[in-house]
Amino acid sequence: MSRPAHKKPEYHKINKDLFVLTYGALVAQLCKDYEKDEDVNKYLDKMGYGIGTRLVEDFLARSCVRRCHSYSEIIDIIAQVAFKMYLGITPSVDCHNSSRNEFSLILDKNPLAEFVEELPAGRSALCYCNLLCGVIRGALEMVHLAADVTFLQDRLKGDSVTEIGITFLKKLDEKKYRRKK
Amino acid sequence: MSRPAHKKPEYHKINKDLFVLTYGALVAQLCKDYEKDEDVNKYLDKMGYGIGTRLVEDFLARSCVRRCHSYSEIIDIIAQVAFKMYLGITPSVDCHNSSRNEFSLILDKNPLAEFVEELPAGRSALCYCNLLCGVIRGALEMVHLAADVTFLQDRLKGDSVTEIGITFLKKLDEKKYRRKK
Repeated sequence: MSRPAHKKPEYHKINKDLFVLTYGALVAQLCKDYEKDEDVNKYLDKMGYGIGTRLVEDFLARSCVRRCHSYSEIIDIIAQVAFKMYLGITPSVDCHNSSRNEFSLILDKNPLAEFVEELPAGRSALCYCNLLCGVIRGALEMVHLAADVTFLQDRLKGDSVTEIGITFLKKLDEKKYRRKK
Repeated sequence: MSRPAHKKPEYHKINKDLFVLTYGALVAQLCKDYEKDEDVNKYLDKMGYGIGTRLVEDFLARSCVRRCHSYSEIIDIIAQVAFKMYLGITPSVDCHNSSRNEFSLILDKNPLAEFVEELPAGRSALCYCNLLCGVIRGALEMVHLAADVTFLQDRLKGDSVTEIGITFLKKLDEKKYRRKK
């Protein structure tokens, strides 16, 4: 039996600008609240983590992605489906090591920082978009994947691109083995 | 000559959920920062005002709306174009008085509060979405229209709909007259 129309997940698309400016207001507020950039970064990550844990179920329902069998597949889903869905861009993906658990998402353009020309004075260690790291970390954790997610490069800090590093902390095979026990 | 493709305003559409959850994090942060609901409401309105003043230029460029000749036309643009563009919904419009300067936008459903089941304990006077009032007020002010914008009803407070009241503070004719001086 097909799903009744009124139960279909809604997928209203919107222009991102109100979101981007609201995010700016959030970061500005945290900069007022916390003197140290490290604390702002930590708090943005923590907020993002909470958001990621809530977002992931809906994302899986809407995106209809299949079960992934490698970290490489997972990263492609994050770049091509999740980033496209929530930020309207598709970062390119880079893999750093032979054990294939360290990846980078490379953003030529970062829509979340679109209205920001430069970091505020005295805030040179601020990871303006650190919420995104938390969102990715939280969402991955909800599908039982532990990962470190951090900004490796940031155009707001003068780098030529913005680069988010994702390191998966367990080998997928190990996890499968543990599940069987 | 037509505009070069790369200069065309971009209009990436995104799913609203990341925005809605990020907004929730912003409100939660302000509730931590300010004890009184009235202060949170005031601050959300102030933040929204700043956002509205920045958003309006882009909105006018993207929406290609024509010059409006009545408040009624302006309200229709807000409801049918702006709300649709930034929140994915189209509120219905109601006019309250014979001088046609008091209007309501009626939202059967409020996407910005989609993940909120009820107001936090002890926060019964919180206008959760007050940022929107500020955005509308700020955007209108940038096109030289002074207005009071407030929530008149809120489903989060048990009302059957969410209603935003907009009262224009000057008659359009008066303004035209003043411009000619």
